[in-house]
Amino acid sequence: MTLPTFQDVQRAASVLQGIAHHTPIHTSHQLNGWSHASVFLKCENFERVGAFKFRGAYNAVTHVKSDKPVVALSSGNHAQGVALACQLLGKEAHLVMPEPVNPVKRAAVQGYGGAVHTPANIQEAELFAQELLRSVQGEWIEAFNNPFVIAGQGTAALELLAQVEGLDVIMGPIGGGGLLSGTCLAAHGINPEIQVFACEPAGALDAKYSVQENRIVPQENPQTIAEGLRTSVGTLTLPILRDHLSGFFVVEEHEILEAMRFIYERMKLLIEPASAVAVAPLLRNEPELQYKRVGVIISGGNVDLSHYFEGFLGQVI
Amino acid sequence: MTLPTFQDVQRAASVLQGIAHHTPIHTSHQLNGWSHASVFLKCENFERVGAFKFRGAYNAVTHVKSDKPVVALSSGNHAQGVALACQLLGKEAHLVMPEPVNPVKRAAVQGYGGAVHTPANIQEAELFAQELLRSVQGEWIEAFNNPFVIAGQGTAALELLAQVEGLDVIMGPIGGGGLLSGTCLAAHGINPEIQVFACEPAGALDAKYSVQENRIVPQENPQTIAEGLRTSVGTLTLPILRDHLSGFFVVEEHEILEAMRFIYERMKLLIEPASAVAVAPLLRNEPELQYKRVGVIISGGNVDLSHYFEGFLGQVI
Repeated sequence: MTLPTFQDVQRAASVLQGIAHHTPIHTSHQLNGWSHASVFLKCENFERVGAFKFRGAYNAVTHVKSDKPVVALSSGNHAQGVALACQLLGKEAHLVMPEPVNPVKRAAVQGYGGAVHTPANIQEAELFAQELLRSVQGEWIEAFNNPFVIAGQGTAALELLAQVEGLDVIMGPIGGGGLLSGTCLAAHGINPEIQVFACEPAGALDAKYSVQENRIVPQENPQTIAEGLRTSVGTLTLPILRDHLSGFFVVEEHEILEAMRFIYERMKLLIEPASAVAVAPLLRNEPELQYKRVGVIISGGNVDLSHYFEGFLGQVI
Repeated sequence: MTLPTFQDVQRAASVLQGIAHHTPIHTSHQLNGWSHASVFLKCENFERVGAFKFRGAYNAVTHVKSDKPVVALSSGNHAQGVALACQLLGKEAHLVMPEPVNPVKRAAVQGYGGAVHTPANIQEAELFAQELLRSVQGEWIEAFNNPFVIAGQGTAALELLAQVEGLDVIMGPIGGGGLLSGTCLAAHGINPEIQVFACEPAGALDAKYSVQENRIVPQENPQTIAEGLRTSVGTLTLPILRDHLSGFFVVEEHEILEAMRFIYERMKLLIEPASAVAVAPLLRNEPELQYKRVGVIISGGNVDLSHYFEGFLGQVI
């Protein structure tokens, strides 16, 4: 497959026009004060399915041949994105969600009309998905290593750059690199001077090594609360990241939690831990961010709130 | 004191121009689907200090004589609103916050430069506040029974009506009635046909009885998770409510929690229980709301998240 380009991001933006939400920018005097920067949060937690993943999934599904069902493997936001995209486009969707499956996410996918398959674990899931793909004669949509997915994810940064003038830096969390590679294409298509930084948990530090060594360093036994960031980069995302990124910020688990709490308590935004990974460098005053205009892609808001609401139940009479 | 008017709300809007945040409207396909209505949430959780209370507090503080310190009694959002307003206007602020004081709210008030006084309980707090008022020769700003406070709170609805055309209904939670009486003035100043409904927890049902009986029925032993709604209405708010309200929706505690969870999980908005009180009638399909264009004032987002983040701590390595 050839690498996607800035023009592909622009095309994806046309495809998503009026379909994806044009998500708002949120700012905070307190966040600016703490970080010594001007910070603009691009709130993809308010995107359809609660995450930027809808953008890439929808764009990719529009390129699937008309009579083909779609098959995807994901236990998280990509599954929801593909299911909703297929519902909107009148296509059959098969989502392979390896156990343990979050019941809320499973219900959401089913609510969008997707058929859910739940193999016992991730190893079985890959075999199962290949088998399923053959039996339904479907088309496969990979969560990040797909040019249309990458181009779709880039539309968040494209919107951000139209909403906020004069950004010096854009950053976001990195897992497989779909969001970040799309962001690189969008940012440098608009202005090659913008610095793009990837933010990665210390407990899942494969993307940084992959870029340094220019090969896919596999993610082994990742340990982070930022679920979505536990994957390795891909053959399409790696070369884009290598050519465009200004660098990485590596954050510890306690920093993720502190950033998440800051955003909840001060800004009243419900975000998932992966999004907090991209806020944490600001709160520790990274020198490369100070006195800059910094855009941050808040990737999503899909978190399990059961524990929180159980706490409230105790107070109800 | 004379009752505030629509013109007072308009004047307050000029005073708050460029000072209060012009908060966004959020909508949801799912909320519309469930409620069979078109629902527009006016997100005052994104207001300064995380609640609409900043509007009334700021407007009232601008009317305090220049050399006078301000004294207010509140353990919640009004204390933060007054403290920030005084900081912005260069005035001395004394906040009487009866024990038990939430340490996060206390720190927030102190962060805005307010002097915090913590009497042992609410009875002592009232005496203490009167004493303090005399000793510092200050001016008293009541949390809702003050014409400038009421006019300030009305600016949220004024903005909402400029943001969304053709609303049939506006509703919000009721405690002392400051928000709702200001909302009545704003709504009927723009269009006397708009129906304004007050939403009240069954466990703190004094405002409904007060309006029915046209006298202040005191709040006794309120039992609700919606902290801010445990107060009685006042001599200024009651006559406005009586003359303008179309009615009350009374909601149970489990409905408050369900509405809160819906807004968190589906809309990724962090709101306080009081705000969920005004969403709950939509989720139970109140006949008076179906097939209408309904504006809801989301009052604020100040909730205690300690329990939630403690749950996460267990996952951090």
